[in-house]
Amino acid sequence: MSLNLTPLQNFPLVKTGDSISSLILACLANSNLQVMDGDIFVLAQKIVSKSEGRLRNLNEAIPSPESFELAKVTGKDPRFIELVLQESASVLRARENTIIVEHKRGFICANAGIDHSNVKGEFGDDQDWVLLLPEDPDRSAAGIRQELQSVTGKQLGVLIIDSHGRAWRNGTVGITIGLSGVPGLVDLRGTSDLFGFKLRITQVAAADELAAGASLVMGQAAEGTPVVHVRGFPYPLREAQLNEMIRPKELDMFR
Amino acid sequence: MSLNLTPLQNFPLVKTGDSISSLILACLANSNLQVMDGDIFVLAQKIVSKSEGRLRNLNEAIPSPESFELAKVTGKDPRFIELVLQESASVLRARENTIIVEHKRGFICANAGIDHSNVKGEFGDDQDWVLLLPEDPDRSAAGIRQELQSVTGKQLGVLIIDSHGRAWRNGTVGITIGLSGVPGLVDLRGTSDLFGFKLRITQVAAADELAAGASLVMGQAAEGTPVVHVRGFPYPLREAQLNEMIRPKELDMFR
Repeated sequence: MSLNLTPLQNFPLVKTGDSISSLILACLANSNLQVMDGDIFVLAQKIVSKSEGRLRNLNEAIPSPESFELAKVTGKDPRFIELVLQESASVLRARENTIIVEHKRGFICANAGIDHSNVKGEFGDDQDWVLLLPEDPDRSAAGIRQELQSVTGKQLGVLIIDSHGRAWRNGTVGITIGLSGVPGLVDLRGTSDLFGFKLRITQVAAADELAAGASLVMGQAAEGTPVVHVRGFPYPLREAQLNEMIRPKELDMFR
Repeated sequence: MSLNLTPLQNFPLVKTGDSISSLILACLANSNLQVMDGDIFVLAQKIVSKSEGRLRNLNEAIPSPESFELAKVTGKDPRFIELVLQESASVLRARENTIIVEHKRGFICANAGIDHSNVKGEFGDDQDWVLLLPEDPDRSAAGIRQELQSVTGKQLGVLIIDSHGRAWRNGTVGITIGLSGVPGLVDLRGTSDLFGFKLRITQVAAADELAAGASLVMGQAAEGTPVVHVRGFPYPLREAQLNEMIRPKELDMFR
């Protein structure tokens, strides 16, 4: 009946080319966790990005005129802005210290998800290294899931999450940027309530609710527990893609 | 190390005047859960609202000219719109089938959180009854927490949550509308990352992350598990108010 979220302990630092599934399996072997059908692994995007070699050095970015202009508005490094624009489909807002974009993969977030923290590159000033999001988080999730399933023989789900700010409210929450085997939305329309009335609301963003809960136990700083094992997810696992969670532009009143 | 979210089984239907804390304690007595310092109870707003007698009959609402106008735009019942406006500080968006407002308590949501489902009134057509949010969810949370603490002798937290839609993404997520003893935000600014760099992001919306995770196991329909017991919340409990989670208007780019 319970939902249990357990961060894997002693997960190693990830380098380009590492297999995330192998690292998870090694971690599991050193724990007393037995994987079961229906279990889900929630992964911080950072480890997936690192394994895919998504580190970039700002010195290799050549700012466009638009990047210089947005750098002025935001007060950010034009090389950084250049990378943000390369990762984005459009810019929603640019203000002092803030740039909110539609990422190429469809979701809205600050800085196209490009991150400075927990990143250390191979040459030059460490402050010049940044980490892009995985190229295709759904594909990354599907690959990791397939590897985990083929070794364990269990039906599993994989969620790749990031921490995003939100409209209207302070603070970041964990949110899904890629998924495999976990329903993004669960449709309760047509379900009856306690008195037999049909429910009007309806679509629960189940993957994002799980992303938020798992983010809570990952820690954001030095703890370094980027993988969370989930048992007790209350809905059946199924194939899914991030796309189902993105509100179509024409139905979005807050762009 | 784990975060455990356990819905209380066999929680009864709540009526006006019921003591939520007494119902929780009775439920606990029938379970094998022993409350510990640091545990949190997450409550669906619906049970708190019902206990506070926040049921309203649409026939008692007298629509203003503004309500008639918004009813035309949205296609909603003008009596329903009247109640929405009475509960709101301002209207952000009104479209066919949708009205998004700033609730009097500061948060942004559809329909001022007024709900048709799982509501059954005392007279007339059941379809005419709706449920308003608690009058002051922070105060409600504080009262319930105080009662739970005085009986159990433990330091506890209480979160009152609702399911809200979001900008940019499909589906609803559980979100905090009132809290006591649980940090709304956890500030990690100044914390070092794995390589000793200072983190720039920073404020984690811890209460909302917990609200989302707990919502996942509450179920939205006939299951009726409106109280979730939480063990393993990873941050110290402290006094807090919803206000810290609301982005000030002048800093909000998406109103």
